[in-house]
Amino acid sequence: MDKKRLERYADLIVKSGINVQKGQEVLIRCELDQPEFVEMVVEKCYQAGAARVEIEWKHMPITKLNAIYRTEQSLSDFTYVDEAKLKRRSEVLPCLIWLDSEDPDGLIGTDHEKLAKARMAIYPKQKPYVEAMENKYQWCIAAVPGKEWAKKVFPGLSDEDAVEKLWEAILDASRVDADPITAWDAHNKKLKERCAFLNEHRFDHLEYKSSNGTDFKVWLNEKGLFLGGAEQNLNNGIWYNPNIPSEEVFTSPISGRAEGKVVATKPLSYQGKLIENFWVEFKDGKVVNTHAEKNGDLLEQMVHMDEGASRLGECALIAYDSPINNTDILFYNTLFDENASCHLALGRGFTNCLEGYENMTYEQCIAAGVNNSMIHVDFMIGSKDMSIVGVMKDGTRVQIFKDGNWVI
Amino acid sequence: MDKKRLERYADLIVKSGINVQKGQEVLIRCELDQPEFVEMVVEKCYQAGAARVEIEWKHMPITKLNAIYRTEQSLSDFTYVDEAKLKRRSEVLPCLIWLDSEDPDGLIGTDHEKLAKARMAIYPKQKPYVEAMENKYQWCIAAVPGKEWAKKVFPGLSDEDAVEKLWEAILDASRVDADPITAWDAHNKKLKERCAFLNEHRFDHLEYKSSNGTDFKVWLNEKGLFLGGAEQNLNNGIWYNPNIPSEEVFTSPISGRAEGKVVATKPLSYQGKLIENFWVEFKDGKVVNTHAEKNGDLLEQMVHMDEGASRLGECALIAYDSPINNTDILFYNTLFDENASCHLALGRGFTNCLEGYENMTYEQCIAAGVNNSMIHVDFMIGSKDMSIVGVMKDGTRVQIFKDGNWVI
Repeated sequence: MDKKRLERYADLIVKSGINVQKGQEVLIRCELDQPEFVEMVVEKCYQAGAARVEIEWKHMPITKLNAIYRTEQSLSDFTYVDEAKLKRRSEVLPCLIWLDSEDPDGLIGTDHEKLAKARMAIYPKQKPYVEAMENKYQWCIAAVPGKEWAKKVFPGLSDEDAVEKLWEAILDASRVDADPITAWDAHNKKLKERCAFLNEHRFDHLEYKSSNGTDFKVWLNEKGLFLGGAEQNLNNGIWYNPNIPSEEVFTSPISGRAEGKVVATKPLSYQGKLIENFWVEFKDGKVVNTHAEKNGDLLEQMVHMDEGASRLGECALIAYDSPINNTDILFYNTLFDENASCHLALGRGFTNCLEGYENMTYEQCIAAGVNNSMIHVDFMIGSKDMSIVGVMKDGTRVQIFKDGNWVI
Repeated sequence: MDKKRLERYADLIVKSGINVQKGQEVLIRCELDQPEFVEMVVEKCYQAGAARVEIEWKHMPITKLNAIYRTEQSLSDFTYVDEAKLKRRSEVLPCLIWLDSEDPDGLIGTDHEKLAKARMAIYPKQKPYVEAMENKYQWCIAAVPGKEWAKKVFPGLSDEDAVEKLWEAILDASRVDADPITAWDAHNKKLKERCAFLNEHRFDHLEYKSSNGTDFKVWLNEKGLFLGGAEQNLNNGIWYNPNIPSEEVFTSPISGRAEGKVVATKPLSYQGKLIENFWVEFKDGKVVNTHAEKNGDLLEQMVHMDEGASRLGECALIAYDSPINNTDILFYNTLFDENASCHLALGRGFTNCLEGYENMTYEQCIAAGVNNSMIHVDFMIGSKDMSIVGVMKDGTRVQIFKDGNWVI
């Protein structure tokens, strides 16, 4: 890959992504796949004034060995070292860069029930820290190609060609052209305009319909806001772009009100496995029925992770003609696949989708209807002929999507 | 590299190296160079019964960026996360595997004075934990080839060929043939016999002479022991091999008694730089004069790191005709180069070289003459014509080395 283009991408992540400020710390989480690119990002963080950049390297084959050989009890261990790490994060609030390159099939062959139980055992101990730092640090998820991931996306190519082609797809989807930072500013403006339109209309609920069987209503929060693109760190007012790429305009609906059936339009990569050709049915805001042609047990296990795992945390609107969808590539990666199509997320909602959240405690946000869960899992429902209508309190109907695309 | 041979090497590290027992934890420290080999080692640890294997990945180019961009104050930061990590190690006492593959030139261009000051600022906070776990855990340093390291050792070869050739040299030097575990048992037996001979004679001091200008005496501890090969974990009695390869028989001399000049016979790789063609002069056990053709300032800085850095912590005997020296390769790596030739170490001594250390506190060992320092740096003094004579209290002289090799 052209080094100059990678430099621009690293720049985009550091400046538009986390927008690191002089004296801030940065934490980078990544696999071992692209150390040279990680070096670039680290150096750009320092050049932008970071006081300290720390890296947490992971390696999926070893994550898998741990998953296989460690007992549930051992995996459930939240040591005082783990706690000290999270405590320091919640106090220092370093910017977080997550360079995703995980093998989507990396955990095939592991006992996902054991892993889920361990996660459930640990989460209550992490919760107070996670909640304390909510919306208070700058973060950015971006992707770099891993060999296994690239081979999954482009199975016909050699390892090297697949990685190169995935680099291209990532950079294309992330608007890394001549001047990505300016391109992102323009893109952000457009997302903000759409948010403004939706927020002005204060829709009571949205109605989704598609010929594939989706027939679904979701009620919005009276104090809910649609967001998209850059977000603001509550702690210091700094704007940052949490996802690169990002095409979505999204909100957290009311936790307890959704009805009907949604049919997934892309497979869901979850815990290293693919849940395929599935649908989910809601009643009184809760999943009451699921079906999948493949890995349906994993889907069932997921929606039963905790009380909130069967309720909605997010509904996101993305044109079917999105730059990512137009690549016609199934990335097997949420960052891309979620930005290719309208989606919902089961689990944890976003408190910052609530008007006035800046002055509310986390518990108050939950009480106001934001869903609470240890999981947040997106699944794609956008289709070529999807219609979305916004229905106002007085019954006024406004077409928002037609034939899969924005009409506003 | 032949996968079967690598499997045998991984086996050697796990079984003869740390000799991990059922239920023990393992900590692996390594660079990013050989993740597939690290996977092998991790799996073998689990198969041997390890309860948990953790990895601390490092990447020299990023260590270098940190060294360049972080301030001395930031580098001197010993956070409560760092402390929690070390505290847990001193309590849980995991086996430690260090897979060394560092680029010997990796820190060229950094401010070594800044790094040394930061290390000095941190060390007092680490000291209580380091001392508490002394001799109480199984550990093993072994090597894997890194690309930069391999290119340094074999500058004429392509990257790939250099790495392959360094793998071969590492495996040859580590006795990884048909049955390395049996070979190590035999080798250990021989080292123990030489230790027994030296320990029976209770030498008062050793006299080193060589035509290159070395003319040096070092006094041994009355309660001192020569050790070599496998060591025993005081906490559980398990035997382990701290160095793979290991050719040395060594002791910690009395901290305060050494006289004369020793001329280095190999360059010393220290903090990413090479100190070349140097000598060191001792008076009353302390370095009083140094000279180096290259990086003499670094040598001077090293011997002034703390009070004990100018005194001896180790004197080690290795035949000039050692398997490693016979490869005729300068490895630019202490693990190999120190096992190629007789050497001394400035700095920290080994408490387990003291008879009865099992029932002594760390402070009592220091009081009994073991040197104390934050550094422990080996430098090579073995030469083709070196003579070493052991002199007993009654004046009896016993030739130990002649023409560079053992005569016992």
